Amino acid sequence: MVEPAGEFETIRELFAPLAHPEWGRGLRDDVAVVPSRPGFDLIATKDAIVEGVHFLPDDPMDTVARKLLRVNLSDLAAKGAEPFGYLLACAWSPRLDWPERQAFAEGLKQDQVAFGVHLLGGDTVSTPGPSSFSLTALGWTPAGAAVSRAGARPGDVVVVTGQIGDGWLGLKAARGGLALDPDRIQALTSHYRTPEPKTALADLVLAHATASVDVSDGLLADLTHLLEASGVGADLALERLPLSRAGSAWMEDRVDPEAALLDLATGGDDYEILMTVRPGAVEALRREVERRHDRLTVLGEITARCGLRVSHQGQPVAVGRMGWRHG
Amino acid sequence: MVEPAGEFETIRELFAPLAHPEWGRGLRDDVAVVPSRPGFDLIATKDAIVEGVHFLPDDPMDTVARKLLRVNLSDLAAKGAEPFGYLLACAWSPRLDWPERQAFAEGLKQDQVAFGVHLLGGDTVSTPGPSSFSLTALGWTPAGAAVSRAGARPGDVVVVTGQIGDGWLGLKAARGGLALDPDRIQALTSHYRTPEPKTALADLVLAHATASVDVSDGLLADLTHLLEASGVGADLALERLPLSRAGSAWMEDRVDPEAALLDLATGGDDYEILMTVRPGAVEALRREVERRHDRLTVLGEITARCGLRVSHQGQPVAVGRMGWRHG
Repeated sequence: MVEPAGEFETIRELFAPLAHPEWGRGLRDDVAVVPSRPGFDLIATKDAIVEGVHFLPDDPMDTVARKLLRVNLSDLAAKGAEPFGYLLACAWSPRLDWPERQAFAEGLKQDQVAFGVHLLGGDTVSTPGPSSFSLTALGWTPAGAAVSRAGARPGDVVVVTGQIGDGWLGLKAARGGLALDPDRIQALTSHYRTPEPKTALADLVLAHATASVDVSDGLLADLTHLLEASGVGADLALERLPLSRAGSAWMEDRVDPEAALLDLATGGDDYEILMTVRPGAVEALRREVERRHDRLTVLGEITARCGLRVSHQGQPVAVGRMGWRHG
Repeated sequence: MVEPAGEFETIRELFAPLAHPEWGRGLRDDVAVVPSRPGFDLIATKDAIVEGVHFLPDDPMDTVARKLLRVNLSDLAAKGAEPFGYLLACAWSPRLDWPERQAFAEGLKQDQVAFGVHLLGGDTVSTPGPSSFSLTALGWTPAGAAVSRAGARPGDVVVVTGQIGDGWLGLKAARGGLALDPDRIQALTSHYRTPEPKTALADLVLAHATASVDVSDGLLADLTHLLEASGVGADLALERLPLSRAGSAWMEDRVDPEAALLDLATGGDDYEILMTVRPGAVEALRREVERRHDRLTVLGEITARCGLRVSHQGQPVAVGRMGWRHG
């Protein structure tokens, strides 16, 4: 590929220092070379983001980079995988000059340390249009152990880590559309810009989940994907939705709590892990999650009857009107 | 990630049929799961392309997809790797509706068969701007065998496969800027749109090359990268440049053959393999390459003295004026 001037410097000055000390070959060799790890499977995932669609033009570029890495790490965590590296493709718009590229690389550097991953390779090009980025994250699981979406069985309990709704509220907060205390606006904006992938819980997913998925499209949409893949259904109680303090504060002002909970349950961008577990495993899993300063909430139960049935305070909720799909 | 409607259908209808039968998990699980292959290294590379920068808005979308796959396979071939799969990120502009997406997937399907690779996963999103695509290709080499850019030694011979210049001429031909016979325009345009990665020669790279790189930025630029990585120099005779019949026909009308050859040697998009080999290995390598209906040309020699010195008919050529870098 023939590239405009500036891309070689971007690689050499900004990205080469992030390269895996052995496997990245200093980003000077077009390829990464990863030794096989006998007894382990390689887990690979890839997400793309576009300026104006997945991030806001005025989002700080360090957080754009960190979020891109984190959403991919979230996919790995939900499968029980331990991440080790990533490849990155950047298509920079003219707006993203050296300082913005530096900030982008600085964000990656910070999160490489936080999550124990290294840059393995990639590509950097210019685009006249909105910027876009894509990242391929790689990790390991013990051979055959990766948890799929397809293992949920009737009687399994549906649980979720952390809180639901802060991704959706965070986007509103970042756009200035929420009337809440400054502290809460700050917490929500921060969650939107740099969500926390639950990498630290990956081993618990391996140990306990019959099926799992990360909550990215929205709790109800992601649960539906899991149910379809498993060929089962579920009953879910909307009032059990775990809320953050900011989420609870937002709920207080809602005139229609059911509609508000549905907004939070379909909003997406949460990056929590939604799992199904055998009933006997719930308490052990909860204890371990809490020992790691996180939270586990039982949302409902898997049924042999297909489809997702949502209730609120014991009354069925018509979720069709919300759609699962945002667009 | 929250996606507009249409992306789920694109994955289910167009991309899922391309998925690796086991490792791709039907593209329904966010991740690919690749079993370890003891005794082999995983080789990974990633290229990105942007509409209007790396492909023309009126290029057929099946060839855009095939070229994206092929340029990545070219990187693997130059390291001696045997490809097995890829992950793909698509950011579609509004112009790329269902028929264009179908054509894109059809192109991939064709080349999956031709090169023995499968889709492992990825992402598909919408963009208001020019389309962009990125692809992560994965392959194997025997452990420790991947050829780097850094192994060239003084006395090694610089050789290249196939022909040089058709990528640059092909871009001109596709843009309607070449006065040649229709057959030759056709051949050049086809090379530009669907270059041939030298996957079939990867085992010969492993067996014979001390260093290698694929010719993507331009012969002189890629050779310079190899020399810098190896800490050596080279003498290169420009008149040895292997030309296709179309390239030779184009040369006939040039008033300054030296400048014309420099254009071809710096144009890029050739996707041939540039290797250094020990002098004693050249003839065995050439025989094997020719047995496979390809061509091997000796271009020059590696020297202890650093830098690339280019000559034409025995006279030194000042290449600085051309620059290596197109931008």
